[in-house]
Amino acid sequence: MSHKPINFEKKFAKFNDHWSPRVIAEMNDYQFKLVKVKGEFVWHNHPDTDEVFIVMEGSLEIEFKDNKVMLEKGEMFVVPKGVEHKPVANKECQILVIEPKGVVNTGGAKSDLTAHNDVWI
Amino acid sequence: MSHKPINFEKKFAKFNDHWSPRVIAEMNDYQFKLVKVKGEFVWHNHPDTDEVFIVMEGSLEIEFKDNKVMLEKGEMFVVPKGVEHKPVANKECQILVIEPKGVVNTGGAKSDLTAHNDVWI
Repeated sequence: MSHKPINFEKKFAKFNDHWSPRVIAEMNDYQFKLVKVKGEFVWHNHPDTDEVFIVMEGSLEIEFKDNKVMLEKGEMFVVPKGVEHKPVANKECQILVIEPKGVVNTGGAKSDLTAHNDVWI
Repeated sequence: MSHKPINFEKKFAKFNDHWSPRVIAEMNDYQFKLVKVKGEFVWHNHPDTDEVFIVMEGSLEIEFKDNKVMLEKGEMFVVPKGVEHKPVANKECQILVIEPKGVVNTGGAKSDLTAHNDVWI
């Protein structure tokens, strides 16, 4: 096993593209992914799993069909499985996403924003 | 579903005891737990699961039988399942622990530090 800590700031410094998750760690069959986001994502849901968002820098809005939540740095939110949601960030925002390995960022929605999966940094 | 963000700082302000995890969120069958730690914990392991530590404030040392890792604020570490470890914090440290629901903080080790499980704030 490695005995190196995983430093969020150093990992975020390694990439600049938006909506393209980078895996930094695995716990059992779950992955920890860093994402830089800006602008509007697509409406989608994950039918088989909850999804955790933690804001590391900036502000993230998550829109739901009937409501929305605004997350600031140091805040987290659990999107329940099957719930349609659309992340939106007016300015660039850095987030940590936690979900089972294999989950596609756009869920079942077809989109140009569908990212390659399992890209480690 | 709730549409309230979970704010780490506000949650940490709700308790002051050490080595006593407070659950703040669930994702599928996993829990997110805040813990204030100070001093030496006990040697233990979790035979059935990895365990994630994220340092939110302060510094945490995790000792292993053959090595150790020092985590600062903004760093995380995954302790693999079955690996003996002992968290140590010289000064109070605030951490986020992520692991499956039902995991006991001291694993199979009997200790005065064994905490009540599933205490929400």
